[in-house]
Amino acid sequence: MDPIRIIEVKENVLAKNDRDADKLRAKMKENKTLLINIMSSPGSGKTTLLKRTIKELKDEMKIGVLEADIDSDVDAAAILGAGADSVQLHTGGACHLTADMTEQGLAGFGDKHYDLVFIENVGNLVCPAEFDTGATMNVCLLSVPEGDDKPLKYPLMFQVSHALVVTKIDVRSVFDFDLAKLEKNARMRHPGMKIMPLSAKTGDGFEEWINFLREKVAEQKK
Amino acid sequence: MDPIRIIEVKENVLAKNDRDADKLRAKMKENKTLLINIMSSPGSGKTTLLKRTIKELKDEMKIGVLEADIDSDVDAAAILGAGADSVQLHTGGACHLTADMTEQGLAGFGDKHYDLVFIENVGNLVCPAEFDTGATMNVCLLSVPEGDDKPLKYPLMFQVSHALVVTKIDVRSVFDFDLAKLEKNARMRHPGMKIMPLSAKTGDGFEEWINFLREKVAEQKK
Repeated sequence: MDPIRIIEVKENVLAKNDRDADKLRAKMKENKTLLINIMSSPGSGKTTLLKRTIKELKDEMKIGVLEADIDSDVDAAAILGAGADSVQLHTGGACHLTADMTEQGLAGFGDKHYDLVFIENVGNLVCPAEFDTGATMNVCLLSVPEGDDKPLKYPLMFQVSHALVVTKIDVRSVFDFDLAKLEKNARMRHPGMKIMPLSAKTGDGFEEWINFLREKVAEQKK
Repeated sequence: MDPIRIIEVKENVLAKNDRDADKLRAKMKENKTLLINIMSSPGSGKTTLLKRTIKELKDEMKIGVLEADIDSDVDAAAILGAGADSVQLHTGGACHLTADMTEQGLAGFGDKHYDLVFIENVGNLVCPAEFDTGATMNVCLLSVPEGDDKPLKYPLMFQVSHALVVTKIDVRSVFDFDLAKLEKNARMRHPGMKIMPLSAKTGDGFEEWINFLREKVAEQKK
């Protein structure tokens, strides 16, 4: 294996992707559409968070969800059921979304205007952090069962995320999980990071998340 | 971006890796060392499983653990505390281990003989499945909180794994998790796959896992 050659290709791919991402981000601003890239491990609750978010916001804004999956359309079906438009994007085995793939996915929504579009990225705490999708902001999810040490082990994800949603706080009592420790670990990677603990099942903490989205959607229209 | 160029490089890397992996696997067989590659999402309980496994088996066999992490040595410290030798391998940002990296890690154990060596792969349900580490067998972990639908969404991981350990079954009552459905989904990807549900916290189901390891260690010495 010649590691140098691989790294060169990767650098070219990343540089090209960064340019595509900046262009897409500018286009979204012009369209007054807030594009949020949701990233997390598999099973952290991305789809469950989005389903409840859609139900709470669909009467006040137009929402779309771009579902990135290696395979299957399990999540897209769930999102449609919650009342938002959904486009399914199969990554063909790829472990992350690029800006180019995101743009192809967004084209699937046609000419309709959206106030808020979520990208549900591939469930992976590593690779999606390396590729700028062109989103206005990155939101990382971490569920209570995953443990409070994850920012130590997956630094880049926490560095590139503008906000952290701590999911499944309703099961906190059955896990050895220290929210203060997680906050400390996350802010070591990203000082001042906004952290919102919530349960999409019970609704606990959900209002802060919804208000955060309302504020960011309004900012994008300025 | 020129996807064809990327794919070509990736194919070359994979072909070279497959050859390295086959060589390493043959060497492990010759050495009578069982090398098990443990893969899962972040926070599924790989380290907790290994700690209890080491405690239960360390008096009857010599065990080593190769800890692959993007950063930090949180897990290696935990493994040392449990009573096994441990080598920490930083992947330098990479989302998976290759056979070459595995071999470099194993060199860290020096000339001592081990009956059983675990690779604790990077927490990632996607990329590690693509790269043969040279392990004698692959064991995938899936924790109850992650959900029973994961084999539908991350097919390759289940296809390449010889056995599936379902972790954290002690919290089954607080999650909407159907073990029969998981088994069906996993065996759709890998017919006849061995599935062992357990809790490393309570010890429930652990005996089957320990006996499975005893049997495989014995087989490797034949």
